[in-house]
Amino acid sequence: MTRPAGDDRAPAPTLVEVARAAGVSRATASRAVNGGDRVSPEALQAVRAAVRELGYRPNRAARALATRRTDSIAVVIPESDSRLFTDPFFATVLHGVTTALASTDLQIVLLIGHKGEQSARMLDYLRDGHTDGAIVVSHHRMDNVAEVLADSPMPSVFIGRPWDPAKTPVTWVDVDNFTGGVLAVEHLVARGARRLGTVAGPQDMGASVDRLAGWRAGAEAAGLATDAVVHADYTVAGATRATEELFAAHPDVDGLFVASDLMASAALRVLETLGRRVPDDVRLVGFDNMELATSLRPALTTLVNPAAEMARHAVEMLLSQFGSSGGTEPDLLATELVVRESS
Amino acid sequence: MTRPAGDDRAPAPTLVEVARAAGVSRATASRAVNGGDRVSPEALQAVRAAVRELGYRPNRAARALATRRTDSIAVVIPESDSRLFTDPFFATVLHGVTTALASTDLQIVLLIGHKGEQSARMLDYLRDGHTDGAIVVSHHRMDNVAEVLADSPMPSVFIGRPWDPAKTPVTWVDVDNFTGGVLAVEHLVARGARRLGTVAGPQDMGASVDRLAGWRAGAEAAGLATDAVVHADYTVAGATRATEELFAAHPDVDGLFVASDLMASAALRVLETLGRRVPDDVRLVGFDNMELATSLRPALTTLVNPAAEMARHAVEMLLSQFGSSGGTEPDLLATELVVRESS
Repeated sequence: MTRPAGDDRAPAPTLVEVARAAGVSRATASRAVNGGDRVSPEALQAVRAAVRELGYRPNRAARALATRRTDSIAVVIPESDSRLFTDPFFATVLHGVTTALASTDLQIVLLIGHKGEQSARMLDYLRDGHTDGAIVVSHHRMDNVAEVLADSPMPSVFIGRPWDPAKTPVTWVDVDNFTGGVLAVEHLVARGARRLGTVAGPQDMGASVDRLAGWRAGAEAAGLATDAVVHADYTVAGATRATEELFAAHPDVDGLFVASDLMASAALRVLETLGRRVPDDVRLVGFDNMELATSLRPALTTLVNPAAEMARHAVEMLLSQFGSSGGTEPDLLATELVVRESS
Repeated sequence: MTRPAGDDRAPAPTLVEVARAAGVSRATASRAVNGGDRVSPEALQAVRAAVRELGYRPNRAARALATRRTDSIAVVIPESDSRLFTDPFFATVLHGVTTALASTDLQIVLLIGHKGEQSARMLDYLRDGHTDGAIVVSHHRMDNVAEVLADSPMPSVFIGRPWDPAKTPVTWVDVDNFTGGVLAVEHLVARGARRLGTVAGPQDMGASVDRLAGWRAGAEAAGLATDAVVHADYTVAGATRATEELFAAHPDVDGLFVASDLMASAALRVLETLGRRVPDDVRLVGFDNMELATSLRPALTTLVNPAAEMARHAVEMLLSQFGSSGGTEPDLLATELVVRESS
């Protein structure tokens, strides 16, 4: 049931054969096939007739060289495939991009891959012009995606600010993570917390850095200590270890800000195991406000991460760069606190 | 923080400039850059020096034209992004492909898209040679993926047999879905079921057709009726509706085979709502044996779908086609029943 080893079908017709059949030069045939610029109407008609007659299919890779059009957009997620499938943030963003692109002719090309060897391959694919633009989600300081795209003529938009916008001038859309951290602290303090702790994200990502900075600024404004800080990698396993570590070192923490809902779900289980009641003993605030936050028991107080809206903005910003030589201004969306049972 | 509209950086050096600096023709420079065939050692050295000096980066799209190498593999999933993220089968397959490709230089390019407009774009991307090969998961009868790949010189492997292997000679790896259906019935009957029902998958997919055919053959061999059949689309919402419909029409069903674990989880909830005890009133068997099967209460009896193993086989079959003109033989993996509390 496989293709026979000695395939004797006729080879695909070449452009040279099309040119010969149309009675024009190869260069004219090429221009005719690639949009018809600087081709007489007669030659255009002859080439089109030859294309139909011979069943010629223009090689799109070649056409992409000439016109820089592949009719596709890369969605770049420099993360492992397990992160992609376990953190609902990615499903929400991808659904937002898919929905926003549904009315266009653009195919989404999803590129996943960590740091190191796999990332190098991904950067090559991006550099090699197989897509017309790129939307980057979950960029890390050392993944080089921002550097590659800043140097590339291909339009791109980051969801989540790039690590160093001054060094890598790519445009982006983000949620106001800093204010989110401040709002979390103000709420925890208003609910009676006097000893604050946080499970922060990895410090090679803008979102994690900004959420932690907001938490710190809020705590300092309230005159509270800021030493109960642990870090995790936005996974359940990482957050479980980090929360255990936090409460082993600081058993008096009574107000906890966790940098994602998924990690907050892990913290909730650890607190249960430790016999700490939420919210009576420990008030808990997450970040993201995905469906997960409502399904947890107690339901999770959290900050809104407008992932679908960021995705829609990113697509609009990307499309606005097509056919224009300029970039678009970065875009910072507001967040807000959603109070539920955990605080 | 965006790229300035009037970008005054020097344009990237061209191959013509490299050729001029190396003192060779453009054709020689091109051959040197694309692997060095038919180039004298002196010319090769001169071109390499010029490439370094000028910071020239070969255009990979052009090189792909010459060498047909993009260093990437498409993983094609002709489904919506919500199906991708809700059915654990896809995460397992994708993790299997990622793991099997980890030691190679190949980037995974994930293409998602339903029937209709979006599928046409996906087929264009596949046809246009942006990848060196393709692994197709969850192919439907009308999605045209098999037709396009059977006509393409690009190597491909289907996970799940193509709809009509005689018409579309692409190679594939699959699990023995028919035997799975037979085993489910034999087990349900051995556990005392006398009135069989099934929630089958969509009948435009090989896996669904084969599972249902096995169920039917098993029921006929046992001398039992085969009229209690409903269909759903492998989603929770679809399976909920279908199970409700099945028990409304056939309230006496006491042995139920559901074509996926995810759909069986929905059936379990419907039975709970109807006040039917599992397994006492209704014995339930799923298909897939993903982690979900063990987390359900009661834990689900199911058939093994060796998704990770299929992914590994598919990658091996694909890589074996590179550099060879022949295909590889299809590959049918065995399934087995895993008995848990639901039967």
